[in-house]
Amino acid sequence: MDGAVSLKPQERLAEALASNMDAVNVLIRERMASEHAPRIPEVTAHLVEAGGKRLRPMLTLAAATLCGYPGPFHVHLAATVEFIHTATLLHDDVVDESRQRRGRPTANLLWDNKSSVLVGDYLFARSFQLMTDTGNMRVLRILSDAAATIAEGEVLQLTAAQNLATTEDIYLRVVRGKTAALFSAATEVGGVIAGADETLVRALFEYGDALGIAFQIADDLLDYQGDAAQTGKNVGDDFRERKLTLPVIKAVAQATTEERAFWVRTVEKGKQVDGDLEEALRLMEKYGTLDATREDANAWAATARASILTLPAHPIRDMLHDLADYVVSRLN
Amino acid sequence: MDGAVSLKPQERLAEALASNMDAVNVLIRERMASEHAPRIPEVTAHLVEAGGKRLRPMLTLAAATLCGYPGPFHVHLAATVEFIHTATLLHDDVVDESRQRRGRPTANLLWDNKSSVLVGDYLFARSFQLMTDTGNMRVLRILSDAAATIAEGEVLQLTAAQNLATTEDIYLRVVRGKTAALFSAATEVGGVIAGADETLVRALFEYGDALGIAFQIADDLLDYQGDAAQTGKNVGDDFRERKLTLPVIKAVAQATTEERAFWVRTVEKGKQVDGDLEEALRLMEKYGTLDATREDANAWAATARASILTLPAHPIRDMLHDLADYVVSRLN
Repeated sequence: MDGAVSLKPQERLAEALASNMDAVNVLIRERMASEHAPRIPEVTAHLVEAGGKRLRPMLTLAAATLCGYPGPFHVHLAATVEFIHTATLLHDDVVDESRQRRGRPTANLLWDNKSSVLVGDYLFARSFQLMTDTGNMRVLRILSDAAATIAEGEVLQLTAAQNLATTEDIYLRVVRGKTAALFSAATEVGGVIAGADETLVRALFEYGDALGIAFQIADDLLDYQGDAAQTGKNVGDDFRERKLTLPVIKAVAQATTEERAFWVRTVEKGKQVDGDLEEALRLMEKYGTLDATREDANAWAATARASILTLPAHPIRDMLHDLADYVVSRLN
Repeated sequence: MDGAVSLKPQERLAEALASNMDAVNVLIRERMASEHAPRIPEVTAHLVEAGGKRLRPMLTLAAATLCGYPGPFHVHLAATVEFIHTATLLHDDVVDESRQRRGRPTANLLWDNKSSVLVGDYLFARSFQLMTDTGNMRVLRILSDAAATIAEGEVLQLTAAQNLATTEDIYLRVVRGKTAALFSAATEVGGVIAGADETLVRALFEYGDALGIAFQIADDLLDYQGDAAQTGKNVGDDFRERKLTLPVIKAVAQATTEERAFWVRTVEKGKQVDGDLEEALRLMEKYGTLDATREDANAWAATARASILTLPAHPIRDMLHDLADYVVSRLN
């Protein structure tokens, strides 16, 4: 088993849950089809086949398995979660006018914004059909609440964008919406469908919530210090798009009058010139905001680890524990 | 009661269902709010307060009341249906790049496409929360199926657009998706929540389906022969947007080689010059396709009337009967 040790936590999860993940992939392919509108599977296949980590559906399978659930509805819920995620990606790329996703041209670039909007709607609707298949009202409530929180977070992000008054609290709410809400719903519904005790369901929710926040903070930090080859993003994309993420929010909070004028010009007014990214990085360095952001991500990962360890011993529990380490390991 | 006789059928329905419609409006206002993202109620209020006919929620209330349902969940279902409709309008206006809706500037014009996409997503999610409130799995199934059919119809419309190979069958599928699916779901869930017999539920579904088709065909016909003051649309908008609706599909099917070249140039290639709309209207006149389209709309209205008359006698049944006449009366 030496070989297994070198596998990343999500690879070990993928191995442990392989037969269920296969079932999820079959269901995704089946339900993303459309008899009448061939554009739909074209667009979804483009995204679904780009791979992605399938992290969210794996969380649902892991949570349910860990709670002793024999199936079959964790497979439907896992596919539901992936559909909601994919629909969100399609709409995000329209909103952000993105050109690349997972190293490939985005659907809005290959087809058009119209297709991305409508196929995203189709996937949302399909996700609700899928969760209805479970016949479990409580998971419907959790997932429809999550969908509302996601959309609310996206709108909040839109209005907070380019607004220097954005606080760390608002940032956290945006992050919970855009990322953590689906992570926590993914783990929570796994516990609920398994009929787990409320204490366990709560711990699974808290694990997903903290994991999602750690994941998103890490992502935002990598935008300023990542390696394009690894992340598929160019350093400073968020700065150029004038997004107020944690490293900038922390620097703005401590800015001198002169520095504040710099942030107003580059982020609020969007008048950027050559050298501005370097100046932004210098200011973040000056106040140690990249380090402080890394510490925040680590703290959320620690919360995730502590939550999952309240569950009974199980090999999958330990993989989820290690996964919380892993999402921030890219930073350390 | 003489005054009442001159009221339009939907006004009589609105009067008969007034207290429930008030409850629907309260619920809509309550659920379209967002504590954290003020952009959401701004955008939704713009649409919701523009009024609209609230035809779809009224259909749900009417169907449930007609089946003897005392409430309260028809109110939730009516609000659900209106939320799905409003979300669809927001996304449609982005896809169609519309500038006017219900005589007012569209949300995508007043705010931006991003807000329309994300607030539409929020309303979709809210609609699923609302239907979950009913605790009735069958209505969840019907409404999530309808949402998928709507999105599929929209994608089909997108790919059928500007394609002269579009047949009347494809047109009908698009119309069922974009309009009739929500009408039929609206009436069907009214019957289901009331616990009505399967025969009645089926008749309510068929009424909604036929009413929706009649309504949409009438709408498409009015685009070529309506009065802008009444319809809020300019004559020929669909032609300029190169949409293949029934009057054109029928004319293309009978076109001479030369006429076909005209349709290829104006609709498929979109190279329109002054006088093209007049020529299009002349060709529709030549083959009587406006009359034939009107007959189709009338035939669907007749199907709707026949379906609703299979239900037990009830004042609301008669108003629904008259409503089917009314949606095509603008044409006759």
